[in-house]
Amino acid sequence: MSTIAVDAMGGDSAPQEVVKGAILAKEQGVDVILSGDKTLIETYLDDVNIPIIDYPEVISMTDNPARALRTKKNASILGALQLVKENKADGVFSAGATGGTLVGSISVLGKIKGVLRPAIAAVLPGLEGDTILLDAGSSLDVKPKVLLQYGAMGSKLAEIIFEIDNPKIGLLNNGEEESKGRDLEQSAYKLLKSSNLNFIGNIEGRDFANSKADVFVTDGFTGNVVLKTMEGTAKLQQKLLSEALKENLFKPFLLTVKKAMEPAKDKLNPDKTNASYLLGVKGLVTIGHGSSSAEAVKNAILYTNQSAQKGFINNFSNTISEL
Amino acid sequence: MSTIAVDAMGGDSAPQEVVKGAILAKEQGVDVILSGDKTLIETYLDDVNIPIIDYPEVISMTDNPARALRTKKNASILGALQLVKENKADGVFSAGATGGTLVGSISVLGKIKGVLRPAIAAVLPGLEGDTILLDAGSSLDVKPKVLLQYGAMGSKLAEIIFEIDNPKIGLLNNGEEESKGRDLEQSAYKLLKSSNLNFIGNIEGRDFANSKADVFVTDGFTGNVVLKTMEGTAKLQQKLLSEALKENLFKPFLLTVKKAMEPAKDKLNPDKTNASYLLGVKGLVTIGHGSSSAEAVKNAILYTNQSAQKGFINNFSNTISEL
Repeated sequence: MSTIAVDAMGGDSAPQEVVKGAILAKEQGVDVILSGDKTLIETYLDDVNIPIIDYPEVISMTDNPARALRTKKNASILGALQLVKENKADGVFSAGATGGTLVGSISVLGKIKGVLRPAIAAVLPGLEGDTILLDAGSSLDVKPKVLLQYGAMGSKLAEIIFEIDNPKIGLLNNGEEESKGRDLEQSAYKLLKSSNLNFIGNIEGRDFANSKADVFVTDGFTGNVVLKTMEGTAKLQQKLLSEALKENLFKPFLLTVKKAMEPAKDKLNPDKTNASYLLGVKGLVTIGHGSSSAEAVKNAILYTNQSAQKGFINNFSNTISEL
Repeated sequence: MSTIAVDAMGGDSAPQEVVKGAILAKEQGVDVILSGDKTLIETYLDDVNIPIIDYPEVISMTDNPARALRTKKNASILGALQLVKENKADGVFSAGATGGTLVGSISVLGKIKGVLRPAIAAVLPGLEGDTILLDAGSSLDVKPKVLLQYGAMGSKLAEIIFEIDNPKIGLLNNGEEESKGRDLEQSAYKLLKSSNLNFIGNIEGRDFANSKADVFVTDGFTGNVVLKTMEGTAKLQQKLLSEALKENLFKPFLLTVKKAMEPAKDKLNPDKTNASYLLGVKGLVTIGHGSSSAEAVKNAILYTNQSAQKGFINNFSNTISEL
């Protein structure tokens, strides 16, 4: 069993929901250490015995991450990362400000040799298995070579967590033809095509509905917008469907139908889905949705624990040096 | 009643589906003129009396639009645009290659004075009324001032087609805070904020599920990816829901439930929704999905006809000069 360091102060409803989630994860047998405001955390722990390290400061969404790194030495995310750095934990989970987790991870753990930019890899639901989208928001503006590295890191991650050979890598673009895209996509296309990756060419947003690619590569701005658009579209459609059912269906059926639809609804609910990985730093770091509930935190900790046991982070340096 | 020029050769199933759609629109009382390969079109027209102008060439998805403009003088889209230029039609509809429609419109009709870049404005379904997303793919890389103009053109379009005052304009970004985004978004934010538009600040992809903004402003690359992601997500969720219902619902109920859900499903189906507008050129141009069926073509022609009757294209030059 692994030990997971949890940023107790990260997330819209932290520390309450995070501590609750940690308790649920512990009940499932995961060793958790909480990093945050000790006094505050204890009020939510009741009698549950979870170790706490006292890092009471918080890097918030409105902080400038680089400045916060200098001024908030006792930020909860930094304490959690320090545990991994010192081999006291096998991975970190945070639902806090992504910018803080990103710069904190680079500062405390360091980038893997050769990595230009770390990337956030989101695991998305698919019909015939999940897909990976990266970068989901760590670097907004990147060079073509960075997208090539994202392809390589995404390929390695898909190989390990989906247990497949030669994952299919696609470049997210505004059309399928090789000539499509901005200068960024046109140059990245050439680099990916001449690499040793299983590059299948340009793919589009509509390909999320099929299993054309295992890995969707894009810059962090586009990736972030895509993820939130998926969330918005799923919610919009659910509301539209719910209204249509209310209007057109015999009322006593409603509850039965809603219940039957529940498992599918959850698949596109960020609160119920897996955490994202921060790839390219020397340690396992997973990132949760800011609005994570206790249930989401529990799932993310279990997921981080599973990932830690696969011990794949060390493989990434080979992946990058082989490019 | 207005006359609509239709690019009969534009679209994956042209001219067959386009001609069928034109016949359906004519049955609803719209005057249509078809531009395309006369001999070919006549085979699908049977005895229906729709005027044809013989522009047999096609600008395809794989053509370089600027080169095609020089080498394919008899392209169907150019014939249709010429009809508007000569006041023989009040608007153009094409489901053909967007690049061809865009450069053709700029060349034949000309840009409205002061417009830096024309934009494709997509009308999207919402819960409490529709929203407009622009640019949906006409210019992949743009300057901040172009996004300001998109805001102004989107505002005017929303005012007229939604019949609302002071439409709410949002800037699509990777977070709500003013500091979010690339240099492009940060500069555009300042321009929009100091304009006379009803700018509500940064909005995110998840805001498609609420009625936070009437107009979503973004660059053409992001806009195109967003639209296709909406399409992909909606299809993915429908498949997931359909599987869940099959698994968990008493079989005889299935058909009833699917039928009850139908009206909502159609709302996110690009084949059933309205066409997009090309804004910033001197004439009414609407753009349909490449895979448009006869039904979609009919709806788009009816929609273009309605828009022509509102006669708003001439208002855009004031909108831009007032910025």
